[in-house]
Amino acid sequence: MGSVGARGTAFITLLTDFGLTDPYVGIMKGVILGINPKACIVDISHQIDPGHILQASFILKEAFPYFPKGTIHTIVVDPGVGSERRAILLVTEDYLFVAPDNGLLWPIISEHKNGKVIHLTEARFFRPCISDTFHGRDIFAPVAAHLSLGQEPFDMGPIINDPLPLRIPEPKRRGHQLEGQVIRIDRFGNLITNIDKKALEELLQGRDCIVQVGSIQIKGVSRTYADVSSGKELVLIGSSEHLEIAVNQGNARERLGPRPSGAIGARVVIKRA
Amino acid sequence: MGSVGARGTAFITLLTDFGLTDPYVGIMKGVILGINPKACIVDISHQIDPGHILQASFILKEAFPYFPKGTIHTIVVDPGVGSERRAILLVTEDYLFVAPDNGLLWPIISEHKNGKVIHLTEARFFRPCISDTFHGRDIFAPVAAHLSLGQEPFDMGPIINDPLPLRIPEPKRRGHQLEGQVIRIDRFGNLITNIDKKALEELLQGRDCIVQVGSIQIKGVSRTYADVSSGKELVLIGSSEHLEIAVNQGNARERLGPRPSGAIGARVVIKRA
Amino acid sequence: MGSVGARGTAFITLLTDFGLTDPYVGIMKGVILGINPKACIVDISHQIDPGHILQASFILKEAFPYFPKGTIHTIVVDPGVGSERRAILLVTEDYLFVAPDNGLLWPIISEHKNGKVIHLTEARFFRPCISDTFHGRDIFAPVAAHLSLGQEPFDMGPIINDPLPLRIPEPKRRGHQLEGQVIRIDRFGNLITNIDKKALEELLQGRDCIVQVGSIQIKGVSRTYADVSSGKELVLIGSSEHLEIAVNQGNARERLGPRPSGAIGARVVIKRA
Repeated sequence: MGSVGARGTAFITLLTDFGLTDPYVGIMKGVILGINPKACIVDISHQIDPGHILQASFILKEAFPYFPKGTIHTIVVDPGVGSERRAILLVTEDYLFVAPDNGLLWPIISEHKNGKVIHLTEARFFRPCISDTFHGRDIFAPVAAHLSLGQEPFDMGPIINDPLPLRIPEPKRRGHQLEGQVIRIDRFGNLITNIDKKALEELLQGRDCIVQVGSIQIKGVSRTYADVSSGKELVLIGSSEHLEIAVNQGNARERLGPRPSGAIGARVVIKRA
Repeated sequence: MGSVGARGTAFITLLTDFGLTDPYVGIMKGVILGINPKACIVDISHQIDPGHILQASFILKEAFPYFPKGTIHTIVVDPGVGSERRAILLVTEDYLFVAPDNGLLWPIISEHKNGKVIHLTEARFFRPCISDTFHGRDIFAPVAAHLSLGQEPFDMGPIINDPLPLRIPEPKRRGHQLEGQVIRIDRFGNLITNIDKKALEELLQGRDCIVQVGSIQIKGVSRTYADVSSGKELVLIGSSEHLEIAVNQGNARERLGPRPSGAIGARVVIKRA
Repeated sequence: MGSVGARGTAFITLLTDFGLTDPYVGIMKGVILGINPKACIVDISHQIDPGHILQASFILKEAFPYFPKGTIHTIVVDPGVGSERRAILLVTEDYLFVAPDNGLLWPIISEHKNGKVIHLTEARFFRPCISDTFHGRDIFAPVAAHLSLGQEPFDMGPIINDPLPLRIPEPKRRGHQLEGQVIRIDRFGNLITNIDKKALEELLQGRDCIVQVGSIQIKGVSRTYADVSSGKELVLIGSSEHLEIAVNQGNARERLGPRPSGAIGARVVIKRA
């Protein structure tokens, strides 16, 4: 990874729950550019619900593989800032990930058995004064910037073997039935579930199905939104290869009706026909 | 246009209805930078109402001429993704426009009679696997990136002569009266109409006027907001050279009162005094 | 400052009340890149409440020092656009600030006694046609772009000594009590006050305290959010070195209960124990 900075362009992505009204994202960018004026910073999202580690981990997992190799992904959803929680760096074959050790990186760690997790302890890569409330500015941004200059990751602290795991809701198979849940709702009101393409194919084995979420019942899996008439519900495999409930030219979340905690977590049942 | 990439800096703008919470915009940027690490990507807006082609076409028309010549404008408001609708590239003297063929580019096509529209058919400029639901990632972003490297547009597919038109509401002249409508409301609550400076001047011929929208009646056209006292309604020619109803230090949309479908489409009548 | 452009990378920050739906921010970026294609533009925020000069000045003051020396900070919160208000440029030892003369820069001017304020009068650095409603596009963006090319600030107009001041609410000391107010609420619902670390230390002299805001009463100052149990209120010195009322894993603004004008301006009293 020492060649990242040498290539001339180093990409740093940012994924936070800071929103776009406060100055926090701008401050992180200022800190990065002060260390590496040639860094190319790309926003993934700053609209993660405050402190919502699971949501951030879904968004990260969906987005990270589309960036050039060598990209430094920087994620700051950090409700435990200033506490004993560690700051970590995950090194995989293709990417670097800088984040608090709060489970955020767990889904990626689990899928990269050769990845190494480093506990960020070398304060020379931080800002001189570390606040108790804004490690995005004082630790994560400067570490990402130093990495983008080609700094060796393994000089930044010791390797650890006990990163904090994250409990991720998994779908349950019961005979000819698969039970999952809504894990993300996008701007279009599409209900994205934790049931992926592979699990669906294993269940259906080429047969048809009925999908139920709340009072909505849908027969069969469509290929794209326009496969059903305008205003009609459908089920498809979305762009992240997960099963998704949608309404053509409409909004599936609204169709589901008002729910106290939104539609996140809503039970989704697929029955093989 | 083959010299775009050769100049050293290639600008790609993005205009979508993806919002800023989901990872979709970040993913498009990752795909572009994977193909052209030196591309300079600029956001126009990602807050187009979902699927609102007309709104996107107004925003695009207002913004595109302010960018450097050679800029590649990439617009993804694409309710028909995955259906038979074509992906197109508009080549004008100064710019390239990449978008779905759903009417979005129609206002620009109409005003650039020498422009050429290309049906994007050459799959070698797409991502290897094309999803049915996210052509922003799989077709439009990679095409824009290849164009930014200097790729010849006319190698990307055949020229077509039948791009999909868009019905744009036009103001109606009736003697000494002009009747238009509100087509866009900005963050300040300014009501931007489809009546442009030229049409207004032709109507008034130097005389005064009365403008009516809902229950608001305003006499005369002001030069700027501060021409009337704080909290007062006014009419002016806004920065896009269209007639605009505003409230100094206030919000004209709120002044109009609650309306079922917002103030978009509200009738605006100008009478020559 | 003539060496800004010479360094190869010139940073321009943008802070506006334009929001991210309208094309205004994109247009400003297009104008800048048309003049200096190598400018690196960084957003601080575009979500300032419309016309809210005081809020913009707080955000600016918090963010600007984190950017590399030579950065050109461009602020467009401009309710008086098109009126007699001047356009100004503040030159400090480390930064340039381009803004309307409406008080926005006052907190920075007051703290930089060696800074010079220039009235931007040289129209050759503006766009050829100046609208009456969008000086961000027509004056501030092109001035920032020319500065980023290394243009001498003092060629842009005469030095003035009477920039418009801004009334900033100051905390009041009464014996062993300090009375301030909430001046900013961030995305996490943290209530940021106008009481800074120094004023607090002078009051407390190492002793304990009780902080009151609305019906919330908190004993003692914590170091970070996680110092109290989940859902509990706390007081701490935030990342901008101001006293802040927060709720661990929660939202202090919501805790304060509904208030007609939000919690901005809410009285905060600290009593030395």
